[in-house]
Amino acid sequence: MAYFPEVSKIVYEGPDSKNPLAFRHYNADEVVEGKTMREHFRFAAAYWHTMRGMGGDPFGPGCAIRPWEDGSDSVAMALTRVKVFFEFMEKLGTPYYCFHDRDVAPEGSTLAESNANLDQVVKALKGEQERTGIKLLWGTANLFSNKRFVHGAATSPNADVFAYSAAQVKKAMEVTLELGGENYVFWGGREGYMSLYNTDLKREVDHLAKFFHLAVDYKKKIGFTGTFLIEPKPKEPTTHQYDFDSANSIAFLKSNGLGNEFKLNIETNHATLAGHTMMHELAYCAMHGMLGSIDANRGDLLLGWDTDQFPTDLYLTAQTMLVVLAQGGIGAGGFNFDAKVRRESFDPIDLFHAHVGAMDAFAQGLKIAAAIRKDGLLTDMIKQRYASWDTGIGAQIEAGQVGFAELEQYMLAKGEITPNSSGRLEMIENIINRYIR
Amino acid sequence: MAYFPEVSKIVYEGPDSKNPLAFRHYNADEVVEGKTMREHFRFAAAYWHTMRGMGGDPFGPGCAIRPWEDGSDSVAMALTRVKVFFEFMEKLGTPYYCFHDRDVAPEGSTLAESNANLDQVVKALKGEQERTGIKLLWGTANLFSNKRFVHGAATSPNADVFAYSAAQVKKAMEVTLELGGENYVFWGGREGYMSLYNTDLKREVDHLAKFFHLAVDYKKKIGFTGTFLIEPKPKEPTTHQYDFDSANSIAFLKSNGLGNEFKLNIETNHATLAGHTMMHELAYCAMHGMLGSIDANRGDLLLGWDTDQFPTDLYLTAQTMLVVLAQGGIGAGGFNFDAKVRRESFDPIDLFHAHVGAMDAFAQGLKIAAAIRKDGLLTDMIKQRYASWDTGIGAQIEAGQVGFAELEQYMLAKGEITPNSSGRLEMIENIINRYIR
Amino acid sequence: MAYFPEVSKIVYEGPDSKNPLAFRHYNADEVVEGKTMREHFRFAAAYWHTMRGMGGDPFGPGCAIRPWEDGSDSVAMALTRVKVFFEFMEKLGTPYYCFHDRDVAPEGSTLAESNANLDQVVKALKGEQERTGIKLLWGTANLFSNKRFVHGAATSPNADVFAYSAAQVKKAMEVTLELGGENYVFWGGREGYMSLYNTDLKREVDHLAKFFHLAVDYKKKIGFTGTFLIEPKPKEPTTHQYDFDSANSIAFLKSNGLGNEFKLNIETNHATLAGHTMMHELAYCAMHGMLGSIDANRGDLLLGWDTDQFPTDLYLTAQTMLVVLAQGGIGAGGFNFDAKVRRESFDPIDLFHAHVGAMDAFAQGLKIAAAIRKDGLLTDMIKQRYASWDTGIGAQIEAGQVGFAELEQYMLAKGEITPNSSGRLEMIENIINRYIR
Amino acid sequence: MAYFPEVSKIVYEGPDSKNPLAFRHYNADEVVEGKTMREHFRFAAAYWHTMRGMGGDPFGPGCAIRPWEDGSDSVAMALTRVKVFFEFMEKLGTPYYCFHDRDVAPEGSTLAESNANLDQVVKALKGEQERTGIKLLWGTANLFSNKRFVHGAATSPNADVFAYSAAQVKKAMEVTLELGGENYVFWGGREGYMSLYNTDLKREVDHLAKFFHLAVDYKKKIGFTGTFLIEPKPKEPTTHQYDFDSANSIAFLKSNGLGNEFKLNIETNHATLAGHTMMHELAYCAMHGMLGSIDANRGDLLLGWDTDQFPTDLYLTAQTMLVVLAQGGIGAGGFNFDAKVRRESFDPIDLFHAHVGAMDAFAQGLKIAAAIRKDGLLTDMIKQRYASWDTGIGAQIEAGQVGFAELEQYMLAKGEITPNSSGRLEMIENIINRYIR
Ligand SMILES: [Co+2]
Ligand SMILES: [Co+2]
Ligand SMILES: [Co+2]
Ligand SMILES: [Co+2]
Ligand SMILES: [Co+2]
Ligand SMILES: [Co+2]
Ligand SMILES: [Co+2]
Ligand SMILES: [Co+2]
Repeated sequence: MAYFPEVSKIVYEGPDSKNPLAFRHYNADEVVEGKTMREHFRFAAAYWHTMRGMGGDPFGPGCAIRPWEDGSDSVAMALTRVKVFFEFMEKLGTPYYCFHDRDVAPEGSTLAESNANLDQVVKALKGEQERTGIKLLWGTANLFSNKRFVHGAATSPNADVFAYSAAQVKKAMEVTLELGGENYVFWGGREGYMSLYNTDLKREVDHLAKFFHLAVDYKKKIGFTGTFLIEPKPKEPTTHQYDFDSANSIAFLKSNGLGNEFKLNIETNHATLAGHTMMHELAYCAMHGMLGSIDANRGDLLLGWDTDQFPTDLYLTAQTMLVVLAQGGIGAGGFNFDAKVRRESFDPIDLFHAHVGAMDAFAQGLKIAAAIRKDGLLTDMIKQRYASWDTGIGAQIEAGQVGFAELEQYMLAKGEITPNSSGRLEMIENIINRYIR
Repeated sequence: MAYFPEVSKIVYEGPDSKNPLAFRHYNADEVVEGKTMREHFRFAAAYWHTMRGMGGDPFGPGCAIRPWEDGSDSVAMALTRVKVFFEFMEKLGTPYYCFHDRDVAPEGSTLAESNANLDQVVKALKGEQERTGIKLLWGTANLFSNKRFVHGAATSPNADVFAYSAAQVKKAMEVTLELGGENYVFWGGREGYMSLYNTDLKREVDHLAKFFHLAVDYKKKIGFTGTFLIEPKPKEPTTHQYDFDSANSIAFLKSNGLGNEFKLNIETNHATLAGHTMMHELAYCAMHGMLGSIDANRGDLLLGWDTDQFPTDLYLTAQTMLVVLAQGGIGAGGFNFDAKVRRESFDPIDLFHAHVGAMDAFAQGLKIAAAIRKDGLLTDMIKQRYASWDTGIGAQIEAGQVGFAELEQYMLAKGEITPNSSGRLEMIENIINRYIR
Repeated sequence: MAYFPEVSKIVYEGPDSKNPLAFRHYNADEVVEGKTMREHFRFAAAYWHTMRGMGGDPFGPGCAIRPWEDGSDSVAMALTRVKVFFEFMEKLGTPYYCFHDRDVAPEGSTLAESNANLDQVVKALKGEQERTGIKLLWGTANLFSNKRFVHGAATSPNADVFAYSAAQVKKAMEVTLELGGENYVFWGGREGYMSLYNTDLKREVDHLAKFFHLAVDYKKKIGFTGTFLIEPKPKEPTTHQYDFDSANSIAFLKSNGLGNEFKLNIETNHATLAGHTMMHELAYCAMHGMLGSIDANRGDLLLGWDTDQFPTDLYLTAQTMLVVLAQGGIGAGGFNFDAKVRRESFDPIDLFHAHVGAMDAFAQGLKIAAAIRKDGLLTDMIKQRYASWDTGIGAQIEAGQVGFAELEQYMLAKGEITPNSSGRLEMIENIINRYIR
Repeated sequence: MAYFPEVSKIVYEGPDSKNPLAFRHYNADEVVEGKTMREHFRFAAAYWHTMRGMGGDPFGPGCAIRPWEDGSDSVAMALTRVKVFFEFMEKLGTPYYCFHDRDVAPEGSTLAESNANLDQVVKALKGEQERTGIKLLWGTANLFSNKRFVHGAATSPNADVFAYSAAQVKKAMEVTLELGGENYVFWGGREGYMSLYNTDLKREVDHLAKFFHLAVDYKKKIGFTGTFLIEPKPKEPTTHQYDFDSANSIAFLKSNGLGNEFKLNIETNHATLAGHTMMHELAYCAMHGMLGSIDANRGDLLLGWDTDQFPTDLYLTAQTMLVVLAQGGIGAGGFNFDAKVRRESFDPIDLFHAHVGAMDAFAQGLKIAAAIRKDGLLTDMIKQRYASWDTGIGAQIEAGQVGFAELEQYMLAKGEITPNSSGRLEMIENIINRYIR
């Protein structure tokens, strides 16, 4: 344990602690609604941002200080990073992690060499998993960085790229299985278009469906029982991405006979880039029984790109937990910090501050949501608001006992509706504030 | 013909005309790709904006000068408006129109009275249709203006409102049938939510599906053979609407067994409010075989509300026609000008300027699109771009002859992909400009 | 006291109160940083939203239940509303109010008649002020609703409209003086353009400057010593407004010799529509010594129009109070609730819920800000962050002792800069969360 | 001439040419409104995008094929690029270019070494300028890429960074002078903040003003007579930049006594990111006499980051030229293509396609604008629209002969305004379309 010598294991010190490297709310063993916080969140650290993000942006290269980096992209360096990463997680206390194949191991000059590199690192990851008990929430393949994917992966106009992507995902699924990963994620970074002028939309989307069918086939073949997750994102890097938002992804899955094979991994910043609140995307997926996992971060609604900031807004975390608790928990998914420290926060310790604050914000959000649920005010108001559907004409409609003709008769006879009630939204927002304390 | 005495029938004078009240491009009988322009567009005037829009906005009431208005909302006034509207269309040359029930006839103090009012006006509309040959593209019911719909129509927490909406849609479908309407449109103006805090999302969406099923039942019962169209809109007046965009609407339809009963009516300004280009929404619907009709207008991408401006951008109209021609025409749908003159354009003659310019912009867009298609450059480039899918591994993939294992073998053997080709998008955009002339 | 019989005077009950019509944080006499909360906020109710807002939106008329309304726009009705409004404020406890001339009194058929109507109501307002001790924070003239202002007021292409606006503002200033108003606000609702194609930009802006100069002249003439405030808004109802944001307004004022005669009234929703945070607009004005008053509301960053929601976000209120406290208070300005209940919140009591929650959110924001300031962590970090400017080369630069040549010499000699320090923003955001409790 | 062997000098072939590497509209010697097109545009190629842009984005490194690159960042490589760049420009026909110091020459390990590197390359640039006659439109210093500038340059909390920036700008100004540059540009890439929580706003802005004053001093000292230009940008890479838009920049300049020392360089994509049309930003600057030069590109209004696409929209180019012609031309400025080919357009020839199309779009825009001006319809309509200001009360107001009291008298006597006229914007937009052909 030598890479973060200035940091000890982060511990819970309670709400009044002024130690910035202690938890004020995240108390892993504390039970809320019958489960420990550890079980509620299944927090994961993201290999890409935490270990490979150096803070580059379109106007300058990275400037992160990472003393363990030797400037190379060698397998040896990759093996060192594994140790750094697990030390980081041990000190932080995240029980899970996530990775892309190309984050953890360098790409070789051939696919075979890339696979061999990956195998070496996977062995190390497995060793660290066993040593620490930290587990793999999900694996995935990076099908967007290499120039090979410049026009897409499964949706490339170049059929070879589809083939390459298939081979790469096959391997990524195998190592995810090898590492006991509980899910496998598909984020279609370059599966979209720059312009419809040069795009055969239908053919590309059909190829994407084909790709997913082949992935499902292979999943069954190798006995991987984890969940397949699609992570929607509306745009960036492409002008318009095929998995635009959860509704779009569900339309795609259902149109292609894949509705039962996938759930969704919802990222906050992607939700807002698509014009939705995070709460909407979560509730929409939950309604379809397809909320699988969460990429826990935050955007800046006044900025138009994916800033992947760490989540600290208590309204956001409380709303997230309200939906998650209402659906009975996150299941086999988890809360993955697909989030990066700002370029300006270039010290290793900033990685700790960022994660500690985010975990705390979610823990506090959980407590807020549980308190709201326990008091039952919100639930009661909703129940009351829809009470007209529980009896009389409402119940008849829901039961399928009336059609347009009967409804017209009912209304002609009645003349006018029973008056509406105020939505009382301002009062409800005030009530929410009672719990943010 | 007395309401627009200063305007004669608008005629085609050709591209060099400087008469602002003549067509420079829309030549109804001119044949393009085997059909007359009249047949291509099936242009419709919108009763609501044209006859009932007075220019009010959130900061001031309407100030349109409409000499025929007597200040009342009587049936007599409604009957006068019918004459004004048909004079307008006769002079303009739109072969179709569209209306909401409450646009054309005043709401009564009971549903029965409202229906009776509507019947009177429908009789007048039918008379004018017969006199002029102008036809009904689609009818619809206004389920958003009356305070009854303050919390939604089919998705209201108040079951009576569902019943009322059913009765109102029943009647609107009947009069649409009576008037020979070729489609029936559903725009869910208040079918959405202000906040998830006080909303039972699933129950509301289930009610919406139920409503559509009942509408389909009734459609069949009365033998209405026109197309049912959903018009997506993402937000405004609600914070988040259930028919957010075409993908969302398709996800909803497919999830509820309604995929074969509906097509979509795509509005430009709604597309852009949802973060999509109009070309995207059109192509996306066409890909699903669900592009039914078009609400032809335009937004202002720097403004965040539905400005419903008249479409005059030739890039927009050319892109629209590229998609429509590619799918073989708009079918039983049409191009409805769901567009309003600005509040500042308060003279009756501004209504003519606005429609004439929009019809011309589409006619020019059609000619541009047809020229692009005739030259075949774009088609050829796309065909060439995807050529790798027509033979070899691409063809095998499309034919379902290979799985992940075979693709991995293929790629391990090959080592690296056949190089990609440049997307050449800048050149293509330059080529498009050749036709904008 | 008969208009809100179901509501008693709102009292402070402390943080644990579950009475939705009690204050949990706003304790008017509680002293924070040496001033009572009453003095800190100088809260004002807005006549237009509270008394005249009926909930209309572009898709339906208002549906607010206001039992005291008789459906007329008579002077008698106006006089009744004065009583309702003051009962509302007495029960709520706002020490100030704000109004537009046309909110409080009906427009007559001539300017003279309008002025006479206004005089009658002003008399009643004065009486109620004396009776209750409630004071006028600011008055203003509505130069945007009447069709007269369709193309602008001071910037209308029609010179008569400038003249009319001058006459109307003259009267509004006089009654503001008569009522002891402490400020006078200019919001240029229609001072902007729909398109540059038909606009003489320079001439319009010059007219606006001329108008303000005449207003300053008249202010001095009548001895009105209150502050003139410009309220920036970027767009809506026009496509682009002349007082776009605070920077634009300051550029305008300084370019026209008006920099010393005006301060700004900053509205949260206008800030965000212009692409800025509220904190930015406030800090920017404060930096220029021009933060005069606040229109306290909130927008929805995923919606593109002015929703004027009541402010309940504690981050927003805390950030607001951090800036206000840092500049030594809001001075002669105040916190005016330019905010409206949603259309769906149509009961009179919703007006109370909305205001109570907003006042509480600001009171809590004040306590948060004061706690942050008392601990001094933020201040210390900033001081430390800029320490290099307090001595050495930094101090020399600030003192004007060095030029480019000397700085080059310094840096050539030094070779490279003293290393930067991390911005630590994630840690700081975590620290802020300590206070949101 | 060996780097683009497949491209010959681009020539003008007229509107009917189907040669994608010929001009259809840009005819350098063609005279429009008394000046050649060459003189109107003073087109410049941008060294950074053209020579150094490799197509990297946040999700993948660059993939541009540039056969002349040897993979190093050596001075030798830099000298080769100079030759490539001038061959490119000679073939393309841009009479000007622009560069940042660090684009053209590699940064050394000390400032002295960086300066020495720059001197070597400047010598080569000068040689190529003399050989070809191509001139320098403007130079600038890159104060944003190096990690040194992570917290800003002149606005860094670290005083050394101010000093370093001063030294770097001093040198960049010197080489701009040496190369006969006609302007010098300041784009404050990192002059802004990530958060106000850790920012001393006033101190930073004061340092920026100080920096500009020192630059003006040095400019005078060395006898550089070119124009200083500020290029506004609202955000990216920072959350909020100090030169947000033209209004903000003008407020800053006027507040700091710099109003006469600077003009603005307006970029299309920056205009739209700030919520303005390009036409607005241009007209706004022109109104202040501060439109100095143009960064000719285009954004995507549905994307929230700076895409710097090549301008091909004829409405945009026509609007731009309307403003430029109205102010009497671009003066000592020019049209610099601060634009990049998409990552997907990775061939060298795409650089030609992109520039050729953009030059053509501007040439066509110039012809459209000149035709509109020649016909005079727009000008006449505007003149007519404001006619009330040329006589009577309007003239009296403009002449300063009346105050609020007189205007009230005038209006009380008149009772109501002379009626407004319709803005006729729809007709005007139709008229504009007459010229897009
Ligand atoms: Co993610
Ligand atoms: Co992201
Ligand atoms: Co529509
Ligand atoms: Co619309
Ligand atoms: Co306001
Ligand atoms: Co507002
Ligand atoms: Co630029
Ligand atoms: Co740019």
